Amino acid sequence: MAQADMLARNDTGIGAVCGILKQRFGERLQTGAALCAQHGHTTTWITNEPPDAVVFAHTTQEVVEIVKTCAAHRVPIIPFGTGTSLEGHVNAPQGGISIDVSQMDQVIEVNAGDLDCRVQPGVTRMALNTHLRDQGLFFPIDPGADASIGGMTATRASGTNAVRYGTMKDNVLSVEAVMANGEVIRTATRARKSSAGYDLTRLMVGSEGTLGVITEITLRLQGIPEAISAASCSFPTVEAACEAVMAVIQYGLPVARIELLDAMVVKAVNGYSKLDLPETPLLLLEFHGSEAGVAEQAETFGMLSAEFGGTGYAATTTLEDRNRLWQARHDAYWAMLALRPGCKAVATDVCVPISRLAEAVGAANRKAAELDLIAPIVGHAGDGNFHASVLLDLDDRGEVARAEQFVSWLAEMAIALDGTCTGEHGIGQGKKPYLLKELGGAVPVMAAIKQALDPDGIMNPGKII
Amino acid sequence: MAQADMLARNDTGIGAVCGILKQRFGERLQTGAALCAQHGHTTTWITNEPPDAVVFAHTTQEVVEIVKTCAAHRVPIIPFGTGTSLEGHVNAPQGGISIDVSQMDQVIEVNAGDLDCRVQPGVTRMALNTHLRDQGLFFPIDPGADASIGGMTATRASGTNAVRYGTMKDNVLSVEAVMANGEVIRTATRARKSSAGYDLTRLMVGSEGTLGVITEITLRLQGIPEAISAASCSFPTVEAACEAVMAVIQYGLPVARIELLDAMVVKAVNGYSKLDLPETPLLLLEFHGSEAGVAEQAETFGMLSAEFGGTGYAATTTLEDRNRLWQARHDAYWAMLALRPGCKAVATDVCVPISRLAEAVGAANRKAAELDLIAPIVGHAGDGNFHASVLLDLDDRGEVARAEQFVSWLAEMAIALDGTCTGEHGIGQGKKPYLLKELGGAVPVMAAIKQALDPDGIMNPGKII
Repeated sequence: MAQADMLARNDTGIGAVCGILKQRFGERLQTGAALCAQHGHTTTWITNEPPDAVVFAHTTQEVVEIVKTCAAHRVPIIPFGTGTSLEGHVNAPQGGISIDVSQMDQVIEVNAGDLDCRVQPGVTRMALNTHLRDQGLFFPIDPGADASIGGMTATRASGTNAVRYGTMKDNVLSVEAVMANGEVIRTATRARKSSAGYDLTRLMVGSEGTLGVITEITLRLQGIPEAISAASCSFPTVEAACEAVMAVIQYGLPVARIELLDAMVVKAVNGYSKLDLPETPLLLLEFHGSEAGVAEQAETFGMLSAEFGGTGYAATTTLEDRNRLWQARHDAYWAMLALRPGCKAVATDVCVPISRLAEAVGAANRKAAELDLIAPIVGHAGDGNFHASVLLDLDDRGEVARAEQFVSWLAEMAIALDGTCTGEHGIGQGKKPYLLKELGGAVPVMAAIKQALDPDGIMNPGKII
Repeated sequence: MAQADMLARNDTGIGAVCGILKQRFGERLQTGAALCAQHGHTTTWITNEPPDAVVFAHTTQEVVEIVKTCAAHRVPIIPFGTGTSLEGHVNAPQGGISIDVSQMDQVIEVNAGDLDCRVQPGVTRMALNTHLRDQGLFFPIDPGADASIGGMTATRASGTNAVRYGTMKDNVLSVEAVMANGEVIRTATRARKSSAGYDLTRLMVGSEGTLGVITEITLRLQGIPEAISAASCSFPTVEAACEAVMAVIQYGLPVARIELLDAMVVKAVNGYSKLDLPETPLLLLEFHGSEAGVAEQAETFGMLSAEFGGTGYAATTTLEDRNRLWQARHDAYWAMLALRPGCKAVATDVCVPISRLAEAVGAANRKAAELDLIAPIVGHAGDGNFHASVLLDLDDRGEVARAEQFVSWLAEMAIALDGTCTGEHGIGQGKKPYLLKELGGAVPVMAAIKQALDPDGIMNPGKII
């Protein structure tokens, strides 16, 4: 079907759909420009493409009704959690209905004995952890933003703890989703492992709303460790810091977090969070385990880091110091923005085999300098995943062009190193050309699956495929 | 297409395909009855349904040629590794060509610095571990049989180490596969994590040969732990042993293995492996870590097990003792068969949430007794996964009927406890009705994917869907 034809049909359909949904959902169907714009993409430099309307769903059955109504009129559906995605996932390039699930925010059950829980998609990771704390449990996936569990599932999110606890793919046991035809599926039971048919759980994790609307998630949980300690260690060069990370991973040290900040980020963080870290490349670490285990890990790290010129290695076990350090890490994004008031950050998230990390980070630093760009680097170094964020004056066309060149170069460099253009943000709108470069012949297979499960292309069109 | 029509077309096509493949592959195309029967299912009570011919492939390109030839004539393709699957996966109910990949047995590369390797599908897990040992690395997935990595990938295998290291889903980084149309895809790069599009890796893991022929696998590896110790502990009842396991998991003790043997299995193992274990329910454990970490884990387990009446708890750190214990565990299948000479074992592999394990194992014991069946139980208890193996005289029709009743009851019981009918063996031919009971509306989604990727239904027909 031609694009023009599709748009024509949307134009006819959207009025009818809005009428039906207004009657059914009353004030929970909104068409105001401000709210619609807020539900289009706002986080990064990607152009805002608002939906025609936003409907706030409260139950799976309501999502079914909305999907069936949209399907009958071939109107696009864009699932929306907190809007913190970085790749235009919530944009509505063909218009349509944004299904906002943020009010589906109940923790349905916690099975402490099984270390799992069932949640609605609008529960945020911080709300979940607050809910769990009394029971000595936590959910480890931490992408920085207080994202919704539904959105984190849809984008296969990860973050600082992934080096030890994995990504969403490893921590979602089962998904309930409303498919394009309005059917509700549950992809798995609460069993810890299963060989029962195709792994639809992992198919939905990372599907970016293009296959169905996620309405419930069953998550693996972890016991809060007996002991936690944090540490920081400075390095003469970013390459030396990366080499220390490589040694840690190859040694098998079970660090819970190992984060890289380059010198520019450390400077930014010092300013923003009122810290006095040495302004050279830095690793921030966290160790989880028994008291003895944590002490042993910290000692081993000290030994390994010294081989790569690590200095100022200091461990802390007080909750206050630890929180201060990690708050600074999580505020790094804002701290970087403050380096250049009025700028926008272009987020990138390549991920390479750990043995290529030093090489990749070094090359990214040099390439940014060559293109006269400011691109501080932070990284979930233990996974080989790093963010070079280009700080950009969007009014400077030359700079924008150079930033685009950098982003493209970075993705291709990662792919050339047998890595990926996206470790955790997803493909969304911006990375489709790189997906093809990265996986080639596998992309038509994805397209065939999309076509089979959403033949009219109504589920979050314009993303991934 | 009606079944009769399909068969008619196969009959026409198979002669042509055999002729073409014979010309191309010479002696590597075999049609002898004995070899074909050996490539049909032989491991369990499932009826042997041999393919029309077996072709031994040596390269991905050869697999492409075979698949394209079969596709052109709509002749079924059945991938074959070592033939150790337990659910009829290698049977050829519609005839066709068995593609034997056992001679594709090269470890292509080991990236020690990245803790990963690329292997051909015919590499067996033991051959891989022998290859890796010099580099201080190992591949942890251990389903007991010396299965091929290709087959383990296709059935989403796991086994004794899964409680710590996960299943094949967690340890396959990427798959190369020849799809039904002869296209070769690579599902991912070597990056540790990725959000690049649909998770085709996890879709192929556990697809049982119904979507494509796996021709290469990239695996995560682990460093051989600094220290390993094994232990055994006896319990007054199977429920008490299960409760101890539940406590271990809930405590977060990172056991590498925690295996349950019921009293009947212990007795069988004592006889078969010349051991003198107390003939009451037993847990076998393994701890991995630093010297201090392993000692701490062993001590914690001792404390936890005592609360549930654990006795005779003994840890061993010598390699010889450890090997003797685990060899006995791996020989349990043969030891059980020896309990009833001439019998066949009906393998089951339900998996339930860990909090329901004691209940499920107790109920399975009682149900077997009620049906006058001999069904010893071993289990990967830390995952909530256990095998009740019915020892069966296949000539006794009444007993066979009761065994079928037991197997069906067991699957439904597990599903009722929010568990799965198959923790690790797969659906294959035998468990299709339970898949529908377990996942209901998700099965048509699987069927739609199958239809999209294999519209002529040539890839391992009659399995899963």
